[in-house]
Amino acid sequence: MSAVTYTFLGPEGTFTEAALMQVPGAADATRIPCTNVNTALDRVRAGEADAAMVPIENSVEGGVTATLDAIATGQELRIIREALVPITFVLVARPGVALSDIKRISTHGHAWAQCRLWVDEHLPNADYVPGSSTAAAAMGLLADDAPYEAAICAPLIAAEQPGLHVLAENIGDNPDAVTRFILVSRPGPLPERTGADKTTVVVPLPQDHPGALMDILDQFASRGVNLSRIESRPTGQYLGHYFFSIDADGHAADSRVADALAGLHRISPATRFLGSYARADRQPASAAPHTSDAAFASAHAWVDSLLKGS
Amino acid sequence: MSAVTYTFLGPEGTFTEAALMQVPGAADATRIPCTNVNTALDRVRAGEADAAMVPIENSVEGGVTATLDAIATGQELRIIREALVPITFVLVARPGVALSDIKRISTHGHAWAQCRLWVDEHLPNADYVPGSSTAAAAMGLLADDAPYEAAICAPLIAAEQPGLHVLAENIGDNPDAVTRFILVSRPGPLPERTGADKTTVVVPLPQDHPGALMDILDQFASRGVNLSRIESRPTGQYLGHYFFSIDADGHAADSRVADALAGLHRISPATRFLGSYARADRQPASAAPHTSDAAFASAHAWVDSLLKGS
Amino acid sequence: MSAVTYTFLGPEGTFTEAALMQVPGAADATRIPCTNVNTALDRVRAGEADAAMVPIENSVEGGVTATLDAIATGQELRIIREALVPITFVLVARPGVALSDIKRISTHGHAWAQCRLWVDEHLPNADYVPGSSTAAAAMGLLADDAPYEAAICAPLIAAEQPGLHVLAENIGDNPDAVTRFILVSRPGPLPERTGADKTTVVVPLPQDHPGALMDILDQFASRGVNLSRIESRPTGQYLGHYFFSIDADGHAADSRVADALAGLHRISPATRFLGSYARADRQPASAAPHTSDAAFASAHAWVDSLLKGS
Amino acid sequence: MSAVTYTFLGPEGTFTEAALMQVPGAADATRIPCTNVNTALDRVRAGEADAAMVPIENSVEGGVTATLDAIATGQELRIIREALVPITFVLVARPGVALSDIKRISTHGHAWAQCRLWVDEHLPNADYVPGSSTAAAAMGLLADDAPYEAAICAPLIAAEQPGLHVLAENIGDNPDAVTRFILVSRPGPLPERTGADKTTVVVPLPQDHPGALMDILDQFASRGVNLSRIESRPTGQYLGHYFFSIDADGHAADSRVADALAGLHRISPATRFLGSYARADRQPASAAPHTSDAAFASAHAWVDSLLKGS
Repeated sequence: MSAVTYTFLGPEGTFTEAALMQVPGAADATRIPCTNVNTALDRVRAGEADAAMVPIENSVEGGVTATLDAIATGQELRIIREALVPITFVLVARPGVALSDIKRISTHGHAWAQCRLWVDEHLPNADYVPGSSTAAAAMGLLADDAPYEAAICAPLIAAEQPGLHVLAENIGDNPDAVTRFILVSRPGPLPERTGADKTTVVVPLPQDHPGALMDILDQFASRGVNLSRIESRPTGQYLGHYFFSIDADGHAADSRVADALAGLHRISPATRFLGSYARADRQPASAAPHTSDAAFASAHAWVDSLLKGS
Repeated sequence: MSAVTYTFLGPEGTFTEAALMQVPGAADATRIPCTNVNTALDRVRAGEADAAMVPIENSVEGGVTATLDAIATGQELRIIREALVPITFVLVARPGVALSDIKRISTHGHAWAQCRLWVDEHLPNADYVPGSSTAAAAMGLLADDAPYEAAICAPLIAAEQPGLHVLAENIGDNPDAVTRFILVSRPGPLPERTGADKTTVVVPLPQDHPGALMDILDQFASRGVNLSRIESRPTGQYLGHYFFSIDADGHAADSRVADALAGLHRISPATRFLGSYARADRQPASAAPHTSDAAFASAHAWVDSLLKGS
Repeated sequence: MSAVTYTFLGPEGTFTEAALMQVPGAADATRIPCTNVNTALDRVRAGEADAAMVPIENSVEGGVTATLDAIATGQELRIIREALVPITFVLVARPGVALSDIKRISTHGHAWAQCRLWVDEHLPNADYVPGSSTAAAAMGLLADDAPYEAAICAPLIAAEQPGLHVLAENIGDNPDAVTRFILVSRPGPLPERTGADKTTVVVPLPQDHPGALMDILDQFASRGVNLSRIESRPTGQYLGHYFFSIDADGHAADSRVADALAGLHRISPATRFLGSYARADRQPASAAPHTSDAAFASAHAWVDSLLKGS
Repeated sequence: MSAVTYTFLGPEGTFTEAALMQVPGAADATRIPCTNVNTALDRVRAGEADAAMVPIENSVEGGVTATLDAIATGQELRIIREALVPITFVLVARPGVALSDIKRISTHGHAWAQCRLWVDEHLPNADYVPGSSTAAAAMGLLADDAPYEAAICAPLIAAEQPGLHVLAENIGDNPDAVTRFILVSRPGPLPERTGADKTTVVVPLPQDHPGALMDILDQFASRGVNLSRIESRPTGQYLGHYFFSIDADGHAADSRVADALAGLHRISPATRFLGSYARADRQPASAAPHTSDAAFASAHAWVDSLLKGS
């Protein structure tokens, strides 16, 4: 019996499962596909799973905004790991179907967007049939009354499914496409600081004025903390109300990151900490001397000594 | 025969057509529904239509990111008008179908997201069937083999279609929801300055460092130009590469806005100007004395006099 | 016998002694006039006096830069109090001397500068004889071979010296002139926080680039700490090398001030703390909610909880 | 008869005359020593001289603040050239006077300050007698009733005056000391741009808040203009009211400098331009690509095209 249980954005055979398989021990763990990001995360929140693997950036499975929103609200969660998966697409159909037979193609909307150049060139008259995932679109072909003749999906699903025939490979517009996935658990001890870490926060814009975003960015800049991702998301409450999802270089155990977090909390008290974890690319962060742990410790010791009257 | 032709994100009966009907003369113009934002815009680019009405913010029809991306690339376009439409949803089915009969609901994904609370409370076991638009989902019910029993759509489509029955009204989670639409044309003379204007730009992040975004924001802040919207979008080229779509208060004919535009162009030469146009809410912009047209004129006259040696 | 000993920038009868007399108990204390600011401070450093009263801003006795430099270097000292004294000047001569007899006037250079308009109008042909202080210039008139016929000094000295005759009163160019003085002691427990406090620091510019000064100012601005004085002083080491002497609103025991001090120490480790003390004008500092002690405490508690894994 | 007339801060034999002699043709020009900076400048203002050489930075002749103040107010003037002069001091006395005979030393107060270490070591008991200039102090020794036995002055005056004997050379505390002088004329065509230029401005702080100085600095920083000098000066009107005297890299004919000047004028309309002129050290300014003249020209052309509707 497996000691560890993972949920992931399913179905099986998507890029997300490929990301999960990068986690040591995942092959022996219980892996539960979920139909959407919210479900995958809610089962972790409920204690039914230890962690969930979901796409966070540039996904073809609908991950980006759904994930950003799902982890920004509700019961708190923590990102404990990230994974990168190269994205390639294949066009599949039932055996015997030729390119010239294809009038309708199904896939997830994001995958469709990423194969537009190939489709425009090779199947300019094909109609698009929305699918809930690339894998679902592919599996749908196996039904007798499938309302489309072809699907765009990950090579993984095509390879595992004998009823599907690959008509074209590498049909994505961008050969270097990669998707970033995150492994999310309930709050607990932070992953160890490795020196090549990333910290993710969600910061609601406290007021509707241009200075607010600059004040937020300044919390990082003034401590020499580099940002590798910043994305706005509407809160959905009313037009012009946003939160920002931010990845910063470094670990909350780094003094300059801790100090920036404290600054964010003061400016925007609803700031949500989503975790500190090792970078998938292992690139170490660089810090100016005046933002080192030693510089912070020295500064605080100095101020303490002043307050004690010495 | 109509002198003016508009395209809009269709089908007929969506919120987008309601927005188009706000344009003076639209009732008498030729109105062409398009299946997606790109098509609506491309027909304007091709000269087949004078302007296109598409959703830009908080849409239920998939407008937001699709529109942001579509106007940020390709042949240049100009926003010449904006429109606000309150968003309300109804649940429709064929006559005789009761709430208890509903096992599957179809609608656009964004509409689905905005009615989750109502659905979770009243139809917690209903499955979701993705639809390409709210109107398409509703019209699909008229087919004999519809793979769902109900649809979520705009009141407009329900009112016009006798084959549909409204089971519940105002089922959106947010009673104040509103969508913003833009009317987009080919480049030409800018709409007149009204004193309550908005300027939209697309600014690619020139380099991947935190200072870049602050430098961009500072172009506005240092001229006292307020921002009413700022959204990041991945360029799709590689992870961490973004452009920012920004709405700023004021008209390009305002000196402080013109000066900010020049600053943006220097920092990020691929900055794209998307137009200056009257605000739908008619709120006039306020400007500090040192950012008035007079202050800019005085400053430039002074510098000119210095350079002339007086 | 007096329990307390003060030094002050002498001689007796100057504005500085008037400032010292504002200190409760000063009338009964031992008051030692010193010929220059350095001596007054060095006797405090040596333990020969408890505190020194010296001019810091807009002085007529040569205080400004001499004091700024003297407290910025050498063994550390602390400002524990400030005093404001209105500045008025009189023209004095020996009895029997008329305005028309005056060909040469002596006074301190700063006093001379502050009475130029009156002198230019009433004694346009008078030559200036440099004096080491206003009081010394006045007392010099009592000598038989005084190389000048009149002196500009404080009303105090004229009133106390029967050998001097006042020829004109209120001859200063600016009727609202005031000089600020500081009472300086050895380091010790800080004066109590009153809610209307001032903190003085000396910050060497860490590098010779424009960003350095902005970084320093940002340490205050980003915590909402207002500055009431900022003055540059050359370090004297080489051209273009400065330190900044800064008065900030608030007390080092205020969290936002303590945090700003820590930031300064990181950026410019040789930053010197010169004390927190009550403002002479009793104006309370205002602080935005996100810079209150409570906001800082809340932010630090939050970060601590994150690091503990809760 | 000389075609050109210069005034300078005298008397003859000071470092200022040495600076003036660096100007091509100065040896053949009429050179008028003035007793103070104001007089030297006022004779230029009145058209009695073509230009004035006065000390501006780290002077031993009282130049610094007097010059900063004198050119910041009154009828406008322009700096057209700068000169650097190494500062060395000698101790002089009448022939036959030995070090052990010296009880009183006269010199300018700034020179006195710069020789304190030497004096403290070699003549710890000598009293200081204020002098109006180093040259005046030296020349005063020639009088029979000189109230001091030695003077500190420039080597130039000692070399030219046979009645003086040099007791010690190079007695300044800082062997690398240098003073910067400026040549000041009435407004006229600016000196040619050389690529290694400096621009000097005087900017009154528009309001008494910390943001004001940051806004001013940002006018330079946001255009990539480096500052080589920034000094505060009280306006003398009331405590806490300052102007800033700033040297920026580059020439007003450089687009980034012209743009910064326009920004300063908007924020602080009383900003005074004091000239663009070649740097004495010939160090060329570096500019980021986005602050080049070409970048500014391209940006303005782009904005113009937008406003024309293309």
